[in-house]
Amino acid sequence: VVEAYGQLAAEGWLLTRQGASTTVARLPTAGPPPPPAARGGEPAVDLRAGEPDPGGFPRGAWLAALRRVLATAPPEVLGYGDPRGRPELRAALAGYLTRARGVAADPGRIVVTSGFADGLARLAVVLRDQGVDTIAMEDPGQPLHRRIAAGEGLRVVPAQVDRDGVVVGELGQAGAALVTPAHQFPLGVPLAPARRTALLEWAARGGAIVVEDDYDGEFRYDRKPIGALQGLDPERVVYAGTASKTLAPATRLAWMVVPARLLEPLVEDRRHRVTTPALDQLVLAELLSSGAFDRHVRRMRSAYRRRRDALVAALAAEAPGHPVSGLAAGLHALVGLPRGVTEAAVAARAAEAGVALELLGPHWHGAPRHEGLLVGYGRPPAHAFRGALQALLAVLTGEKP
Amino acid sequence: VVEAYGQLAAEGWLLTRQGASTTVARLPTAGPPPPPAARGGEPAVDLRAGEPDPGGFPRGAWLAALRRVLATAPPEVLGYGDPRGRPELRAALAGYLTRARGVAADPGRIVVTSGFADGLARLAVVLRDQGVDTIAMEDPGQPLHRRIAAGEGLRVVPAQVDRDGVVVGELGQAGAALVTPAHQFPLGVPLAPARRTALLEWAARGGAIVVEDDYDGEFRYDRKPIGALQGLDPERVVYAGTASKTLAPATRLAWMVVPARLLEPLVEDRRHRVTTPALDQLVLAELLSSGAFDRHVRRMRSAYRRRRDALVAALAAEAPGHPVSGLAAGLHALVGLPRGVTEAAVAARAAEAGVALELLGPHWHGAPRHEGLLVGYGRPPAHAFRGALQALLAVLTGEKP
Repeated sequence: VVEAYGQLAAEGWLLTRQGASTTVARLPTAGPPPPPAARGGEPAVDLRAGEPDPGGFPRGAWLAALRRVLATAPPEVLGYGDPRGRPELRAALAGYLTRARGVAADPGRIVVTSGFADGLARLAVVLRDQGVDTIAMEDPGQPLHRRIAAGEGLRVVPAQVDRDGVVVGELGQAGAALVTPAHQFPLGVPLAPARRTALLEWAARGGAIVVEDDYDGEFRYDRKPIGALQGLDPERVVYAGTASKTLAPATRLAWMVVPARLLEPLVEDRRHRVTTPALDQLVLAELLSSGAFDRHVRRMRSAYRRRRDALVAALAAEAPGHPVSGLAAGLHALVGLPRGVTEAAVAARAAEAGVALELLGPHWHGAPRHEGLLVGYGRPPAHAFRGALQALLAVLTGEKP
Repeated sequence: VVEAYGQLAAEGWLLTRQGASTTVARLPTAGPPPPPAARGGEPAVDLRAGEPDPGGFPRGAWLAALRRVLATAPPEVLGYGDPRGRPELRAALAGYLTRARGVAADPGRIVVTSGFADGLARLAVVLRDQGVDTIAMEDPGQPLHRRIAAGEGLRVVPAQVDRDGVVVGELGQAGAALVTPAHQFPLGVPLAPARRTALLEWAARGGAIVVEDDYDGEFRYDRKPIGALQGLDPERVVYAGTASKTLAPATRLAWMVVPARLLEPLVEDRRHRVTTPALDQLVLAELLSSGAFDRHVRRMRSAYRRRRDALVAALAAEAPGHPVSGLAAGLHALVGLPRGVTEAAVAARAAEAGVALELLGPHWHGAPRHEGLLVGYGRPPAHAFRGALQALLAVLTGEKP
C-alpha cells in the first residue's frame, strides 16, 4: 500500500500532503498536484475538492464593478492603505455577513486578508505572541491548516470528529481551536446544537479562542444555512470567510471578524503586510453593495445543488456500495467505500482513467480511522459535468466508461 | 528635542519608525502617519517620500487591460495558481527587466510577490533557513526593511553610506546585504562602479547574498539609468522590483529575480501563501506586453523630472541654505539644513503649516550622523504641486506662504 501511494504521489495523482508531521515547522509542501492529462492530451477529469467551477466566475459583473470603481474612487485609494482593508469593503462585508451568516460584524472588527491561509498564518503569530502554544484542529481536517499553524510555531493537536461534529472533550487545554461548524471539512457534518454550546463553554472556561472557518457557508442546499457560531460569542470566536469558493481562489480575498483582544495585534502585524490590492477590495465591495454578489451566489448554489443531486442519484443507482455522507452542502461529498475496497485501489484505478480525486487518508492527523473519497463536484466545467460523473462511476464500478 | 519629537509623533506628524531597536522581533509598528489636515479641514500638503502621484495612475489603461484579460484568459487562471506567479506575467517581466534594467531575467527565476515588503519577509525566512543569521543594511536606510528582517529572526547590522554608496568594508561577516545601488535610499547617491565590483567580490568571498532593492530604478532624469547590479552576478544577487512607484502601492505587485540556491525554497515557502490575485498579475502582463506600461512610465518620468527641477530651482532661489543632494532620480530629494537649524525645528514649523514631511533622523540605525529632510515631490496632485512647493518654501524660510 505504501509503495502504491508513493508511486501515485510521485506521478502527481495524489495529494501527498502529510498530516502526521504537524510539529515540524516549514515542511516542504507539495500542494495540490496538477490535474492529470488523460492519454492523448485530452483534458482530464478533475474531481478534487476545494475549488469552485472557474467557468462560473462572473467576469462581466467583475469588469462592470471595476469600471464603476475606477470612475468614482478618489486617488487616495491607490496608496498603501489601511492594514484592516478598505473601509468600503469592511462596511459592505459587515452588512452581508450579518444578513447572510448571522455574524456579529462591526466593520471596525473586520480584517481583510489575502485568502484564509494568509489570515490563519497571521492569527497563529498573534496567538503565539499572546502566549497560546497549542491549537486544536479537527481530525480529520485540512492538512494545509495544520502545516500553516505549525509553520508559525504553534503545536497542533487533533480533536476527533463524530457525526455531531468535533468532540469538545478532546480539545483539552489548547489555547485555540480551529473548527468548521457549518460543514465539517472533510466529513461534511454540521456541529450539533449541544456541541455549539459546549464548544463556547470550553472556550469561556479556558479563555481560549475559537476560529470558525466558514469556508463554504454560502452553499447549503436543503435549507437555509445555520448561522455562524461567532454570532453567539463574538469575543471568543474569530469568524473567517472567503471569496475563494463563492467567486474564485484567484481573487485572494478573505476576511476575519475578530474579538477585541486580537484586533489591535492583528492590525499591527498587518501594518507592513498589506497584501490585498485596493482595487480588488473595492470591486468586491461594489459586487456586495449592488446585489451582484448575491445573484451570483444564488446562481451557483442552484448549479452546485443540481450537481450534488446528480452525484447522489448516480451513486445510489450505479454504485450503491459507495454511500454519500454529510450535509447537502458545499462543493464536495464524502463517498464511502464498500467492504474490501481500499483508497489505494480506487486511487490506482482513478489514475489509470485520468480522474483526479482526493482521498480521505491524508486528512487524518495520524493513522486513518476509516477510508473514503472526497469528490469535489464543483470544479468540472458545467458542460463536462455529466461526463465527469460517468468517469467517476466507471472508476468506482471498475467498468470502462 | 526628544520631547518635541515625541509630541510631533503623537500627533501623527512624524514618522515614528525607530531604527535603533532592530534586533527586537515584531516591534509594534507605527507606519506612515496620515497626512495632517490643515486648519479649517482643507487638504494638507503631503510631501512625504515613497509614493507616486496617485492621480497619475493609468485608470483607463488598467481597465482596458482587464477587459482584454477577461475576454481571453482560460478558466484555469481563476484557481489557486502557480506559487511563482502567473507565467504570462513572468514572461512579460523577463522581457521588460532585461530591456529596461539590464537584469539577467529568466521567467523561471522570477517570483511575483505582494509588494517588496512581502518578498523581503519571505526571503528573510528562506535565508534564515539556509543558515544566514545576519543581514547588513545601509545606514541610513528604510526603517521598515530593518523591522521586517528583524521580525523574521535575522540580526540587522548597519553599513555606513558615503557619497559612493554603501561602504563595502562595513558589511563584515553578514550572510546577506540589502542595498539600493541605483539610487540609495534615502541619501540619493548611486553605488560607484568600484563599489559595485567590491560588493560582488565581498559576496563571492563570503558566499553571501546581495539583495538589490531597485525601488525606483525607472525614474532617472539626467541620463539612462545604470543597469542592475544583478546582471553582473545573477547567482549572488536577488533583484527586487516593484510596481508601487511606477503604478501605485495599491496594486501590491512586485517581483524578485532570484539565484538558483534560493529559488526552490522560496517557491516552497509560497506554496500555501500565493497572495497575488491572478487577474492583477495578468493585467500587469498585458500592460507590459502592449507597451502601455512603458508609455505610462515615460509620461510620469517627464512629470516627476519637471517637479524635481522646479524644487531644485525654487530652493536655490528662495532657500539657498537648503542644498539638494543626490541624483536627479526617483520621487524624493534629500534637502540639507543650514547651520543652526535642526530637523525638530523644521518639523515643528511644518506641523504648524499643515505640511507633511519626512526627516532623515528615523532612517539612521542608531544616532544620526547628520540631519536633513526627505522631500517627496511625487505625491501631491499635479494641479497642487506649485502650491505644495510654496508651502515648503514658507516652512523652510519661516515666512507665511
